[in-house]
Formats: sequence, structure tokens, C-alpha cells
Amino acid sequence: MREVAIIGIGQTKVDEHWDKSLKELAGEAVIDAMRDANRDYADAVYIGNMMSGSANHQQHLGALIADWVGLRYTEAIKVESACSSAASAFRAGLMAVASGQLNCVVVAAVEKMTDSTMAEITTELATAADADYEAGMGLSFVALNALIMKRYMHEYGWKKEDFAPFPINAHVNAVHNPNARFQEAITLETYLKAGMICPPINLLDASPVGDGAAAAVLVPLDSVTRDGRPLVKVVGSGGATDSIGIHHRREPLFLKAAEISSKQAYQQSGLTPKDIDFFELHDAFSIMAALSLEASGFAERGQGPRMANNGDIYPTGKLPVSTRGGLKARGHPVGATGLYQITEVVQQLRGEAGGNQLDGVKTGMAQNIGGSGSNIVTHILQRV
Amino acid sequence: MREVAIIGIGQTKVDEHWDKSLKELAGEAVIDAMRDANRDYADAVYIGNMMSGSANHQQHLGALIADWVGLRYTEAIKVESACSSAASAFRAGLMAVASGQLNCVVVAAVEKMTDSTMAEITTELATAADADYEAGMGLSFVALNALIMKRYMHEYGWKKEDFAPFPINAHVNAVHNPNARFQEAITLETYLKAGMICPPINLLDASPVGDGAAAAVLVPLDSVTRDGRPLVKVVGSGGATDSIGIHHRREPLFLKAAEISSKQAYQQSGLTPKDIDFFELHDAFSIMAALSLEASGFAERGQGPRMANNGDIYPTGKLPVSTRGGLKARGHPVGATGLYQITEVVQQLRGEAGGNQLDGVKTGMAQNIGGSGSNIVTHILQRV
Repeated sequence: MREVAIIGIGQTKVDEHWDKSLKELAGEAVIDAMRDANRDYADAVYIGNMMSGSANHQQHLGALIADWVGLRYTEAIKVESACSSAASAFRAGLMAVASGQLNCVVVAAVEKMTDSTMAEITTELATAADADYEAGMGLSFVALNALIMKRYMHEYGWKKEDFAPFPINAHVNAVHNPNARFQEAITLETYLKAGMICPPINLLDASPVGDGAAAAVLVPLDSVTRDGRPLVKVVGSGGATDSIGIHHRREPLFLKAAEISSKQAYQQSGLTPKDIDFFELHDAFSIMAALSLEASGFAERGQGPRMANNGDIYPTGKLPVSTRGGLKARGHPVGATGLYQITEVVQQLRGEAGGNQLDGVKTGMAQNIGGSGSNIVTHILQRV
Repeated sequence: MREVAIIGIGQTKVDEHWDKSLKELAGEAVIDAMRDANRDYADAVYIGNMMSGSANHQQHLGALIADWVGLRYTEAIKVESACSSAASAFRAGLMAVASGQLNCVVVAAVEKMTDSTMAEITTELATAADADYEAGMGLSFVALNALIMKRYMHEYGWKKEDFAPFPINAHVNAVHNPNARFQEAITLETYLKAGMICPPINLLDASPVGDGAAAAVLVPLDSVTRDGRPLVKVVGSGGATDSIGIHHRREPLFLKAAEISSKQAYQQSGLTPKDIDFFELHDAFSIMAALSLEASGFAERGQGPRMANNGDIYPTGKLPVSTRGGLKARGHPVGATGLYQITEVVQQLRGEAGGNQLDGVKTGMAQNIGGSGSNIVTHILQRV
């Protein structure tokens, strides 16, 4: 199996892009990534996207986007695993290059959500849950996460304000990220006063949807001619599922799929949680940030909020998370989010994270969660 | 790169399965395939599907189906490329096993279309075309194919009745396939009297949609213990795109993506069109059957109908096609079709095709078309 390098990255700002179509958004990210990689050709285009078929009345994004960016005739597919679609597409592209079957894959992920009404988007998002036993009963995604958070607070004795450091950290970091949807800091007071959506989840526990696209160019490491720039390779990758409905889980408060996929990534890389310098986790809701830290080996069960309250997750802490704003403040264009996470890890490892740059980081992890924890994909990247 | 064998296949009848949910349908095919393979575990589940997000209000089929069939925690993704979703998922699974990264992948493809109205399904199918320049102008998929067929008849001088052998052959063959939607033969007279949908396409030029699922189990060839049954391996695989809209194509009457992907499959296998014993082609419309024969190297440009009228495509001909009814009579559950084609090739190569069994066949080809020719995936399978 060949080692794989990420030689180009691109992303658009997460925003309400009413003036751009789906393919225009994706095209911007792909062309930026290919320019960054100094390539004008690829063997395949892998697209991550969740809801274009219903939200944009357009399926078949592989053929659509490949042609739009000038790669007509190139093999192209879409990969979907709900909110982890982008990381699943990245992992598929990674396997194709690692295996020697393809020599250059452009992975791009895109979601365009703000042309729809919030009612439509809430319905679309619910298709990531169990249609028969969750969505069909009227459970929205916020409600599912609220059930988990409520039980977690009951079980481990945490209070509402104990979750505040997650969104506060994300929002403070997003101030320095020009591609973030909300480039504004919040305080504990703002957090505690935020409107309740579904108790105990308030507006500042929930990530905002948005339109956006990100892309990465993957090639075999040994094919890269060094040009003096830092180079980033993928050292670990894993993917796993859990029951789609939370009512079927043996332990609804533990992300088993995060544990399995992060262990796969640790094993492949020969690394342990202690070797990870920073972690782009899936803070779609504050509770998910806590659960990710626990299942990925950074905190004991029920102790995710302690890490946050100790300051460990801040840029100066032991394990900075959401360093460019995370889902919470950079925004969560659902099927594209996993590739924002990966491109942000690359930015940090290359020293291109601007006002968010962490000192001396060599190894970063990205974890993308599909559904309420039912599909989780983890990648570890390293500067070489 | 490891050689890959198909050690298990399963499929449901293509029908109106109003009594079964999406996951029940997929589950039947997967469990049949795993029983056939004598396996109770897989490293990953790859799902092919096009429209479940809108037609069934359920995305995230990877996690849904993996759990349903007893493979909770297993990695699982969905692959989509419109009507070629199933073959794209199969190709992704093939690459994962060939590369040595996974040792057993279950590929399953499912589509459940008959719970929706025909107006809804026509709208869903149009998402495989260019939303801005085709679907947005009111062009349905039948209309797109009608434009191609009309121009083709004008350009090459064929008459309506010259296309009759394609559906006649398909329907005669489907009589012997218990999983076919329409197990009834038709005559030239029936064909010519069939109601017009969109000139020149009549009801018997168009494949029927339906509900159905098919599955295949992929493992490395060298891991298989022979048990006396014929074994089938994948010897060639290719995938390519063309512009999503036909108005952008340099040659709207030639399936460039079929030419590229079949050449890739020929090259990988060291075979030529002459070595192919039979061909499960994508006869969604009669015109597509003709164009497939031409682009895949079996007929000169404009001469597909001649092969049909010579009788070359019949079970006794030089290159039998649609041997179990094809899309036309077995039925076309859109995102599942490509895996029906592959499982039918396996049935023929194993000698399990019942009343459709071809004599002494060793090499079969399957070609799955997404959109109006914008994504085409070709596989060559061989008995070993």
C-alpha cells in the first residue's frame, strides 16, 4: 500500500451563497485545490454530498462537477453517508490512491442548503436518522441530540454552563478564519442567554447550516517533487458504523463508531491519542464534541466537559479543537463539513492557518460524524 | 493488485413491493448473497442507490442496511452516480478488495420507486440530468432519449421497426426469469401498436421502473477454497463520464464514456470484444442498447440496430444481450440495476440461469449507464 499525500486544498467561505449554483461552489473549491497542487488533471473525481437530490433537484454530482471543472471523461462518483459524506468520499479516494489503482484523485465536497426553507432543511436533515422509528415519529436532528444531551447531563451530573467552553472556543477561533460563517466571539453570558431550541440545546449549542465546498488533491507520496513547502501525508484512516437509530444502541451515550474508527486510524499510524497535537472534531452540537473526545481516547467516559472546562481544548491547551471555528462557528454545510475539517488540518500542518496558527504542530486529527453517531470517519494527518 | 472473486450473489424479484420497506428489500438480497457465499461477516458494506433521500425520505443507507443485516459497526457508505449507482458501488468495492485494504466487501444496491406517484418518480429521474439546462426546461428522461433516438434515426436512416428486436429479445428472455417484472413475450405487432410516450419512443422502447435489490460478495480470489462450484472472477473494470447534458456533447449519438470505460476493462483483462460471450447492456431505452453495442466495440457507428436485426443479440446469436430480460423486461429499479446485471452475468457463468442458460459461456460483460450516457461503468467477468 502506497503512502498518500495531500498536495492541494481549496475551500469557499461557508455562507448564504444565493448568487452561486451548486456546481459553481464546488468548482471554486476544486479549482483552488488543483491550482494549489499545480495539477490540471486527475484520474477521478470523488464528490461528498448529502442532500443535493432533494435540496437542489440535482443528483449525479460526479458527472456534473467533473465536466464543470474541465475533467470531462474522468471517472466520477458521489459518496454519501449523511453528515459524514465528505470524510467517506475522502476515505474512498484515499483507498483508490493507496491501492495503486489511481494516481491522482480530486475529492470535493459540497452542500447548498440556504436556497431551501428551514422547514425543508430540517426535513432533509432528518433523512440521516431512521425514517421509520425516528424521523417518522417527528424527531428532528436537534431533538435527537437534545435527548442524548439531557440523558448525559442526568447520568454524569453536568450542568448547562459546563458545555459553554465548546461554543466559546469555536467562536473565538472563527474570528480569525475568513471562511467562517460567524466570525464573532461569544461570551459565557451570550451562551447562557441564547434562545432555547430544544431543551437542553440552545441556539449556541447548535451549528449553523450553510452553503460551502471544500476540496483536496490526493497523490502517492513518492510521486511528489518537494518545492520547499511543507508536505502533508495521511497516516491513519478509519470508518465504522453504529445503529442508525439511537434507540437501538447498547450505549446511547458512547460513540462506538468513533472508538472503532479512531482505533483503526491509531493502529494504522502507530500513534496514540497522546501523539495528536490538535483535533478537528464534529461539534455539530456541544454534546457531540464531548462524546467525540471520550470515544477517541482523549477523555474518560462522561468527562468530555471536564477537558473543555480545564481549558485543554483552547488553542493554548493540551488538545486544541475546532481551531478554525469548527462546525459551530465556521458552519456546517452538512455533506461538505468533513472536507473542511481535513483542509483545516492541512492548513495548520502547513503553517497556513493565519491568526489561528498553532505553534509547532506536526500531527492533526479530523473526525466526521454522520447521523447521531451512526457513521464516523477518522483521519490522522502528519507534516513530513 | 489482488484478483477479486464474486463468491455470493442475491437478488429480489423486480416488482411493486408495497409490503416491504427499503431496508427489508436490501436485506433480502444481502442475506441471500451472504448465504450463497457462506459468510456471516464482511469488512464493509457498499450500497448503490440513487433516490432514497427523496423517494423514501431516507438517506444514510450504509448505516441503515449494515445494521439491519447484522453487520453493525462495519464500515458502510452509499455510492451514487444516478442510474449507474450500482455499478459504481461495485467498482468501489472491487477497488477496496483488489487493493488489499479490505478482505470482504458486500455490495448491495436497492431502489424503491413504486411508493411514489409517477409524477414524483419522473421528477426524481430528471435529477440525473442537468438541473439547470435540461430538467429545468421541462425535459424528462424519456424526452432526452427521444431526442437522441430521433436524431439517430434521421442520421443513419433507421425506421421505428428496426428497433423492435431489442425489446422483443428482452421480453422473450424474461419469460424464464422468475425475478423479472414482466415475464411475458411480445411480438413485432405488439411493439408497433404500443402507445407512444414521446415520439419516437413508445411504451415498449422504455424500461419499467420498479422496486428491487441485488447484492454481491467480493473477496480476494486467492482466499477462496473451491467447493466444486464454478467460481467467477472480475477480470476487467472501467468507469468514465461525459458531459451531464447532451447539448454539451461533441457527439450526442456516441457514448464516449462507454467507449472509454469498456476500453479500460478490455485493457485490464487483455480481452477484446470478440472474447465476450454475452453482454448485459443498459437497455433503459431501445436506443441506448444500440448505442452501447457501438461504443463498446461490437458494432460500427450507426449499426447497432443491424446487429439486432441480424439476430446477433438473441440467445442463439453471436452476442446475446439482456439474457434474463434486461432493463426492458426484468425491470429497472434505477440505482439497483447495475448489480442485477452483474448478478445475472454470474448466474450465466455459473450455469445457474435456468431457462435462459447460454451454452458454454466463459466470459460476460455488464455495462451500466448513468444519466443519458454521462456516467458509464463496465465490468468483464470470467468463470475460472
